[in-house]
Amino acid sequence: MCLIMEADDHDGCVLVAPQNFSMVENGVYRSSFPKPEHFGFLTALNLRSIIYLCPEPYPEEILKFYEANNIRLFQFAIESQKDPPTPIPEDTVMAALRVLVDVRNHPILIHCKAGKHRTGCLVGCLRKVQNWCWSSVLEEYQKYAGSKCRQRDMKCIETFDTVSLRQCLLSIMYRYLGYGPNRKRLLYGEENVQTPKPQATNV
Amino acid sequence: MCLIMEADDHDGCVLVAPQNFSMVENGVYRSSFPKPEHFGFLTALNLRSIIYLCPEPYPEEILKFYEANNIRLFQFAIESQKDPPTPIPEDTVMAALRVLVDVRNHPILIHCKAGKHRTGCLVGCLRKVQNWCWSSVLEEYQKYAGSKCRQRDMKCIETFDTVSLRQCLLSIMYRYLGYGPNRKRLLYGEENVQTPKPQATNV
Repeated sequence: MCLIMEADDHDGCVLVAPQNFSMVENGVYRSSFPKPEHFGFLTALNLRSIIYLCPEPYPEEILKFYEANNIRLFQFAIESQKDPPTPIPEDTVMAALRVLVDVRNHPILIHCKAGKHRTGCLVGCLRKVQNWCWSSVLEEYQKYAGSKCRQRDMKCIETFDTVSLRQCLLSIMYRYLGYGPNRKRLLYGEENVQTPKPQATNV
Repeated sequence: MCLIMEADDHDGCVLVAPQNFSMVENGVYRSSFPKPEHFGFLTALNLRSIIYLCPEPYPEEILKFYEANNIRLFQFAIESQKDPPTPIPEDTVMAALRVLVDVRNHPILIHCKAGKHRTGCLVGCLRKVQNWCWSSVLEEYQKYAGSKCRQRDMKCIETFDTVSLRQCLLSIMYRYLGYGPNRKRLLYGEENVQTPKPQATNV
C-alpha cells in the first residue's frame, strides 16, 4: 500500500481492512477471511497472491475479484482444531512456506478464517526461519490469537524444522543467482525476481 | 528485514524483538522502548531513523548504538497520560507525522515507552491519512493497547486533521517532482528519494 494515497483517491473511498489485518514483512500481509467490503483495501495492497489455509472452497464472488485483479490463489487445506486436536501436518506448512518466501508471489496475503491460529502458525514458522527468538515469536502469535492460544499451534511452530526450508531456499537461490559470492542469500524484493539475462559471449 | 537471513547469519545470533514490535508499512516499524538486547534485531531492520515520543532523555548506551549505526533520532515530547488526562498536542503529532511520511527517513521505527498509546496515536493518525475507516484504525490501536484503551488517544486520532498534513505533503512532492502529471502523489519507497538530476540543455 502506498504510504500516502493519491490526493484524489480518498474521495468517497474509505478503506475497510479485513479483521486481524497486519503487515508481516515487505510484501507479506496477514488477515482474517476477506469479504467483498474489503475489495477496496485489497486493491490498495496490489496483491499478486493469496495463501489460503482452510480446506473449505472459496466463495465465488471473491474468486472472481481475484481473477479480475490477476491475484493467484494458493490453497493449503489445514483442518480447524477438533477435539481432540490433530497435529498440523508439517509438509503442508512447508509447502505454504515455500510459496510465502518466494518473492515472485509478492505482494502476498496469508489468511485462514479468523486470521488467528492457522495464519499465526505459518507466520510463526516464518519468524523461526528469520531467526526470531521464541519469546518474540510467541508474543506475535498471541497478539493475533488473543485469548485463544492453542497448544497444537505452539507445537507446530516449535517443532517446525527450518533446516529443510533453508535447503529448499538455497536451491531457489542457486537457480536464480548461480554459485557466485551471493549464493547463500535469497535476495529480497525485486532483486531476485528477474531471471538473469543471457550474456553475450565472444566466440 | 530480509525475509530470509543469510545462511550464516543465524549461527549463534537469535533475534530478540522489542515488545509490541510490528511492521506498519514498508519501511515503517513500531515497538516499545528498545533495549540493548534488541540491538541485533534493530541492526537487521537496517534503520535510518527513530521517532521517539516521550519527553524523557534517551539512555546513553542506546544513543551510542544509534550513532555507530548512523541512525538519526527524532524526539517528540508527548507527556504520558496524567489524571485528569491532558490532550495530546496536535502540532506535536503533526510534526512527528511529517518526519514519518518522509521516505528519506526510512526505514524508521516509532516507539514510546510501551509501544501502546503514544505510538498507537501516531500510527492511528497515519492510518487516517491513508484513508482507513475508523473501525480498522480502532482495531489496530486496540491490538497493541490491549486492555488499556485510552480516551485521550481516541480523541487525538479522531480529531486529527488530515487536510493540513496532505497540504504539507503536496509541498514536499512539488519540491521533489515539480508540477508534472504526478504532482498530486507522494511516491513511495525509493522513487522520490532521488533529487532530479540536472538536465542537459541545448542552447
